[in-house]
Amino acid sequence: MAITVLLNKNNFPFIANKWEEFQKTHPEITLIEDTSANFQEFESKIANNTDDITSVSLIAGVKNDYNLDAKIFDALPNLKAVCFCSAGYNQIDFAEATKRKIQVARVYDLDTSTADTNLFLLLGAMRFYQESIKDLYIHHKFQNPSKVGIAPNGLTLGVVGLGAIGQAVVRRCLPLGFEKIIYYNRRQVAPELEKELGVTYVSSIDELVSQSDVVDLNCALTPETYHLINEERILKMKDEVIIVNTARGDVIDETALIKYLKNGKILSAGLDVFHNEPNINYELVELDNVIALPHVGSFSKATRINAQLTVLKNVENYLSTGKLISFIGEQRGLFD
Amino acid sequence: MAITVLLNKNNFPFIANKWEEFQKTHPEITLIEDTSANFQEFESKIANNTDDITSVSLIAGVKNDYNLDAKIFDALPNLKAVCFCSAGYNQIDFAEATKRKIQVARVYDLDTSTADTNLFLLLGAMRFYQESIKDLYIHHKFQNPSKVGIAPNGLTLGVVGLGAIGQAVVRRCLPLGFEKIIYYNRRQVAPELEKELGVTYVSSIDELVSQSDVVDLNCALTPETYHLINEERILKMKDEVIIVNTARGDVIDETALIKYLKNGKILSAGLDVFHNEPNINYELVELDNVIALPHVGSFSKATRINAQLTVLKNVENYLSTGKLISFIGEQRGLFD
Repeated sequence: MAITVLLNKNNFPFIANKWEEFQKTHPEITLIEDTSANFQEFESKIANNTDDITSVSLIAGVKNDYNLDAKIFDALPNLKAVCFCSAGYNQIDFAEATKRKIQVARVYDLDTSTADTNLFLLLGAMRFYQESIKDLYIHHKFQNPSKVGIAPNGLTLGVVGLGAIGQAVVRRCLPLGFEKIIYYNRRQVAPELEKELGVTYVSSIDELVSQSDVVDLNCALTPETYHLINEERILKMKDEVIIVNTARGDVIDETALIKYLKNGKILSAGLDVFHNEPNINYELVELDNVIALPHVGSFSKATRINAQLTVLKNVENYLSTGKLISFIGEQRGLFD
Repeated sequence: MAITVLLNKNNFPFIANKWEEFQKTHPEITLIEDTSANFQEFESKIANNTDDITSVSLIAGVKNDYNLDAKIFDALPNLKAVCFCSAGYNQIDFAEATKRKIQVARVYDLDTSTADTNLFLLLGAMRFYQESIKDLYIHHKFQNPSKVGIAPNGLTLGVVGLGAIGQAVVRRCLPLGFEKIIYYNRRQVAPELEKELGVTYVSSIDELVSQSDVVDLNCALTPETYHLINEERILKMKDEVIIVNTARGDVIDETALIKYLKNGKILSAGLDVFHNEPNINYELVELDNVIALPHVGSFSKATRINAQLTVLKNVENYLSTGKLISFIGEQRGLFD
């Protein structure tokens, strides 16, 4: 089968040589490098069919600001498969893709490095380390932060989303000494897993936010979780709640987040993800009670190599069998 | 017994009212507030007997830059007891104090909050989050760090000092997935504890540093551990080693540390403690591969309240029985 693969080479620094080798040993594939600086440029390439882009049958690696919807699918009539190089895949309208029989794969097993990032932000937000870091780095002041940090003892941790990442977060939080760990998930997990993790299920997000001292977001961004944490839910939270988000920025309504960080209802937040990355709202980053990272969740060597190899394996399998491997949950079994 | 207590009130923000109450109900004590900005000022007050300072029999809370040695003991002839408001007590020559029958107490049970700080710095140093944080906060750049972070999988963690804090650090590192955790301690701990923590003893610091991918310092600063990590030991370490220090700055020779952070032998360091605090060398903080905090190790509300109450309890006990409670290890049993 002859296929044209649109490849964002910058996404594959560790296996660049493997793509070259792959292309040499598979003359039936054409690799087109996606050099678009942003989604607007990508759209304009499609409109003008620059690089013969409308011949693309598979997209390997999708940039954060892309929006692969019906309009794009209409303009790419040969598109049959999209492989994300990440755990998240909110950039694609997967219902529309499924309707058009476009296969979609994601990367699994990024959980540990993302959970490590989550733990870093949780500890940082609980102890106001952002203030200490700014004092040291920017102001050359060696002093205690103005607010005394909080220790986990006696507190309730509320985990939203108990998939692989959420579970890895819980495992890392167990030794910290939280009094109770509760979770909300689309489905309650097996009793054995609940027991192993020492977690208690709550049946609604409202119940979770009202009981938690720390709200820790690990769910996928879907139409259902868009602005899951909004003004109404923040008002249901305890006073001086701490929020940690390594999921996706738009799981939180940032306007409400900023408002309640400013008035102190939210004591502090640890954020790896933002609305409209990379052109984020720096008002949020600069608040005294925010510790922020630039979406580096799973950015470790081991997980990056794993993610990049996963995409290549999906493409290889598609080439030999017409099927991707690591389908998104919504498409599992659909192409069997 | 009438005693004069020198109190650094700034050290006791959470229990200021308790000291006032204590003084009211114990007319036999005189509280002198230590308002010295630094050790030089303290020495000059002693020289001039400002505030009748030579009458002091008990010091409650010792500042970081103090140096309580024979010279100070000579100038404070009534001194009978010193209560640190911290786990560390390197500011006192305890051998000399013991010789003069001056009792010395420290605070125990600060392990969890210090271990949380250690974990934050370990994760940060492994993933180069200092670079991400500087990019975001200082340069408003939302991008991946220039170096891809390291995940713990397959690596050896070497813990120096397996006291309460070292043990709490190990417990927090267990879920991170290190391949092996080794430790060096003055004494090998009980086999049951080794098994519970999953740690392996190595009989010398040289062996520890040569086998570890991450060297994590949790020992007390004593004459034996001063510059424990020096140029010779750094050269015995693996290339691209990571160093974490929440013990005391002078456990490391900072000149050697800076040299090998600059040339890349040391990949990255997470540091909460420095030589000559608070007037530290900012060259170290500003290195791209250093994540730093201003000695906030145990600075959480729960542990601060605990520490401050411990000092008060020591003073109360001294008043009623002539003995402190939470003696430093070197004086355990000596005053029975």
